[in-house]
Amino acid sequence: MKNIKLVVEYEGTNFSGWQVQPGLRTVEGELKKALDRATGEDVNIIGAGRTDKKVHSLGQVVNFHTETDIPGENYKRLMDYLLPGDISIKDSCEVDEKFHARFDAKKRQYKYLVYNRELPNAIYRNFSYHFPYYLSIENMKKGAEYLIGTHDFTSFKLTEDIEVNPIRTIEEIGIKKYGDFIEFRIRGNAFLHNMVRIIVGTLLFIGTGKMEAKEMEEILRAKDRTKAGITAGAEGLYLEKVFY
Amino acid sequence: MKNIKLVVEYEGTNFSGWQVQPGLRTVEGELKKALDRATGEDVNIIGAGRTDKKVHSLGQVVNFHTETDIPGENYKRLMDYLLPGDISIKDSCEVDEKFHARFDAKKRQYKYLVYNRELPNAIYRNFSYHFPYYLSIENMKKGAEYLIGTHDFTSFKLTEDIEVNPIRTIEEIGIKKYGDFIEFRIRGNAFLHNMVRIIVGTLLFIGTGKMEAKEMEEILRAKDRTKAGITAGAEGLYLEKVFY
Repeated sequence: MKNIKLVVEYEGTNFSGWQVQPGLRTVEGELKKALDRATGEDVNIIGAGRTDKKVHSLGQVVNFHTETDIPGENYKRLMDYLLPGDISIKDSCEVDEKFHARFDAKKRQYKYLVYNRELPNAIYRNFSYHFPYYLSIENMKKGAEYLIGTHDFTSFKLTEDIEVNPIRTIEEIGIKKYGDFIEFRIRGNAFLHNMVRIIVGTLLFIGTGKMEAKEMEEILRAKDRTKAGITAGAEGLYLEKVFY
Repeated sequence: MKNIKLVVEYEGTNFSGWQVQPGLRTVEGELKKALDRATGEDVNIIGAGRTDKKVHSLGQVVNFHTETDIPGENYKRLMDYLLPGDISIKDSCEVDEKFHARFDAKKRQYKYLVYNRELPNAIYRNFSYHFPYYLSIENMKKGAEYLIGTHDFTSFKLTEDIEVNPIRTIEEIGIKKYGDFIEFRIRGNAFLHNMVRIIVGTLLFIGTGKMEAKEMEEILRAKDRTKAGITAGAEGLYLEKVFY
């Protein structure tokens, strides 16, 4: 029995998210189809994190167990023949039988790309979130400071998710501008559903002056989703890296 | 009567090229539909250059004449409501009634993006050409040198295009590597059909060592398409800028 680890890149645009759902095209579903064909088995895929519809991945990590003898490093080439163009395997290898892509993940890093011009961009429309108003990078950086560390992020999660422990640790939030783009990079131990998108949406409110940076502290304390900003669009979000 | 100039960006993936063709989705066709609605007229669009299926634009230039009073600078916003997401207007203005987007164009600049890793990239699959073999940037630069200046580019055009003057002037070919990408930037007075893609395809042969840099001179002299390299994929090509 081998335990195989894959690093998976995908464009989220034409997927109904990560998780298998009957009748819908999902990343996990397409990956399972290809792995079932490659192995001739009914493979159980463990992913480091779920991603929503339209969310991209540069470094999703999965593992699965198989009885086949295929060397771990061969999967990346083999899967190139079996997967659709919008999923690619960046790396594959055999790992310790105990390795678990989700439970063993120590940190996750997300990238969020905003296209900050008045009018939308045809080329980047599925790869960035169009936000047409002036943004102060300085004020957004100040606002982000309040989120660093261990907090109750109830104000920054999907309201419907009620049975989750809302305590999370954010290690770093980087914000930089290049050309017409603003890139956010957020690293933490784990993230609640919609957490990165609500953090970015709230920082955008701060960036425009609609909110002050110091309000971030009150939003955290309120534990109330309605106090935070918008949920920024899924098309700007990339699961960039999972740390073990 | 106003003469309006537009700078048009588009993702070529889902278009059957630039030019209007009955029953097919083309950039000119979609643009005409939107301009006809905006003006209430039967608009005649003049484009600086045609682009093939899957070829992108960052700076296509068009002009059209209209009797309507809409100020030139308003078209970019107005068209945002009327155009599909894969076309956007970067700029619009009123120009001299004599301005002609094609005949007045002095130079065109194209960008060509190669993804140079063994396995394909899901995110960039429609925005770069996947070439999996090692490439020597130095040798490609040497090969490109032979193309600078005024030459007969018969070896670098679509064989079927027989009635075109094959003399063209290339001003600059830049080649740089960043990460897993190699970016070619080619500027000249005008380009024959497939010329940029065949130039890149030939440089890729030189980059791998399949051809020597100095063979470029013989290929030019041969005036024979079969002597040059492959036609690199349309998905890596961007019409970047038109100079007037």
